[in-house]
Amino acid sequence: MIAAKGYAAQTNDSSLAPWNFQRREVGPHDVQFDILYCGVCHSDLHQIKDDWGGSIFPMVPGHEIVGRVVAVGAQVTRFNVGDLAGTGCMVDSCRTCTSCQQGLEQYCLNGNSQTYNGLEQDRKTPTYGGYSNTIVVNEDFVLHIPETLDLAATAPLLCAGITTYSPLRHWQVGPGHKLAVLGLGGLGHMGVKFGVAFGADVTVLSTSAAKEADAKKLGAHHFVVTSDPAQLEAVKGQFDFILDTVSAEHDYMQYLALLKVDGVHICVGAPPTPAAIQALSLIIGRKSIAGSSIGSIAETQEMLDFCAETGIVSDIETIAIRDIHQAYDRMLKGDVRYRFVIDMATL
Amino acid sequence: MIAAKGYAAQTNDSSLAPWNFQRREVGPHDVQFDILYCGVCHSDLHQIKDDWGGSIFPMVPGHEIVGRVVAVGAQVTRFNVGDLAGTGCMVDSCRTCTSCQQGLEQYCLNGNSQTYNGLEQDRKTPTYGGYSNTIVVNEDFVLHIPETLDLAATAPLLCAGITTYSPLRHWQVGPGHKLAVLGLGGLGHMGVKFGVAFGADVTVLSTSAAKEADAKKLGAHHFVVTSDPAQLEAVKGQFDFILDTVSAEHDYMQYLALLKVDGVHICVGAPPTPAAIQALSLIIGRKSIAGSSIGSIAETQEMLDFCAETGIVSDIETIAIRDIHQAYDRMLKGDVRYRFVIDMATL
Repeated sequence: MIAAKGYAAQTNDSSLAPWNFQRREVGPHDVQFDILYCGVCHSDLHQIKDDWGGSIFPMVPGHEIVGRVVAVGAQVTRFNVGDLAGTGCMVDSCRTCTSCQQGLEQYCLNGNSQTYNGLEQDRKTPTYGGYSNTIVVNEDFVLHIPETLDLAATAPLLCAGITTYSPLRHWQVGPGHKLAVLGLGGLGHMGVKFGVAFGADVTVLSTSAAKEADAKKLGAHHFVVTSDPAQLEAVKGQFDFILDTVSAEHDYMQYLALLKVDGVHICVGAPPTPAAIQALSLIIGRKSIAGSSIGSIAETQEMLDFCAETGIVSDIETIAIRDIHQAYDRMLKGDVRYRFVIDMATL
Repeated sequence: MIAAKGYAAQTNDSSLAPWNFQRREVGPHDVQFDILYCGVCHSDLHQIKDDWGGSIFPMVPGHEIVGRVVAVGAQVTRFNVGDLAGTGCMVDSCRTCTSCQQGLEQYCLNGNSQTYNGLEQDRKTPTYGGYSNTIVVNEDFVLHIPETLDLAATAPLLCAGITTYSPLRHWQVGPGHKLAVLGLGGLGHMGVKFGVAFGADVTVLSTSAAKEADAKKLGAHHFVVTSDPAQLEAVKGQFDFILDTVSAEHDYMQYLALLKVDGVHICVGAPPTPAAIQALSLIIGRKSIAGSSIGSIAETQEMLDFCAETGIVSDIETIAIRDIHQAYDRMLKGDVRYRFVIDMATL
């Protein structure tokens, strides 16, 4: 086994603290890479607190992981020692179900292996995430990270990036489309960047008027303060797509009214309580509400290559791992533009 | 003006009773046809009772109307005296908005003219429906009815038919697809017939085990009693599409679980209360909930021509207009297989 160290929560009411643990030996199809940066996702905090139930402790969070390869298995063909490498929300999947066969591992019907707070495909070995110094992952779930991009700012592409890239590609959002991005946080700011890059006319919908300048700086063409009824009224029936990145409770009906005929409201944020939706608000105008979860491995690589071409990365604030709790506190207050990334050299 | 007679509600708490009224003179672009049959839609009763608010009285219900042309305006090119003709839920639309320009009058952004309980495009002349002896409609909103089909059984195609035909065509439901039809009433039984005709593998989902034989007779390949948890469990993740024809409150989450990855739950029934929907249930599996409203005039004609080719009509029970209240009572109890149609000769 390989000695590893990281920050872990021992129970759902403990703080993160240094923890020594073991990674598996590098198998014939495995890649081991030393972690240089790991993004901080809001879901890290939810899972540490066991907000969604079923959390597995000790837990080493982190699923926006980038670093440099230090070992490869005998059968590995796609990576060499010294390559940059990354891993997102999944480290394996069943590989046999309809979804996996279609290259949609994110929708694996037998349950893919989450990068942390999950189990390997043996259904018993816990997975440990990227708040740590090194990781061993099957090469099929390791991404090539372009050398030309700022490495720390690339880490959040592996969750926040792909979560917004994938639905915009799936629904073929592009020139001629009016796209609204609801919520300007970690996900939303990537949705704006990708929407603009894909050629859509992008509007940010936000409760906070203070974010307008930032939205425009990110490339958004328009900004609507959702707490102002007049501003909302002015964009009624205007959007082909709404990319909804909000995980707090909100009024879906209010936003459905902003869609054109055949418009699609795409949920990538998951509030804890159910949305109240009148079927009639979908029937009048043949509208849809849909959901989307991260993206496949192939699509994540496609996104990284697209980012290399276009120079897109996340806007980040780098932190030392000892400051993680302060970062969580600021994240809860929305005080981050737009993603914290842990510099793992501080471990 | 043209003297007309029909059955009308004078207020929201009155019964329907004979009423004499006037239709406009046949204008240059109008078709007048004498009504031979009119289908009875559940929405007739809702509107008479003003369940949805804004009802206009006196009200002559009925929007599944077929008959024979008795006069045409000087500029009318598509109809001759003696032709069969039909009118569904709309008698006009603005013709200038994006939807109308795209041939989607059912989604007219300025508000189309409903066949009854609506206003003409002058926004002041009330419309009166098909529980009457004759009607005058702009030729663009008159359908050709194939002579080969049973005329009474064709009437419900103009609402129940197109409401199910349109979404199945829009979402391109066909061979290789598993389609569930939720609810086996006026809409549902048409959804089954069209789904089968389009080559889908069709399952009826119904609370009533008693409907299985009927479902199979209509062509359904499978039947699931939704009150039986074991039967529901057995079809989890099985359907590409659910066509939801239920207007009573129901648990949408229960049905979302039956969809495959990328599955679509299509609402054509509109319960009075909002549905409770967890965004996560859409995110996991990239599922959608969508709505659809009737169909365009062109699509309604396409459906009628398809029905002529395939021999599809509604299963009906013909009634005399004096028995309309008894028919409503039976409709409320679900005691109709599957649509009442008024023989207007009984007026």
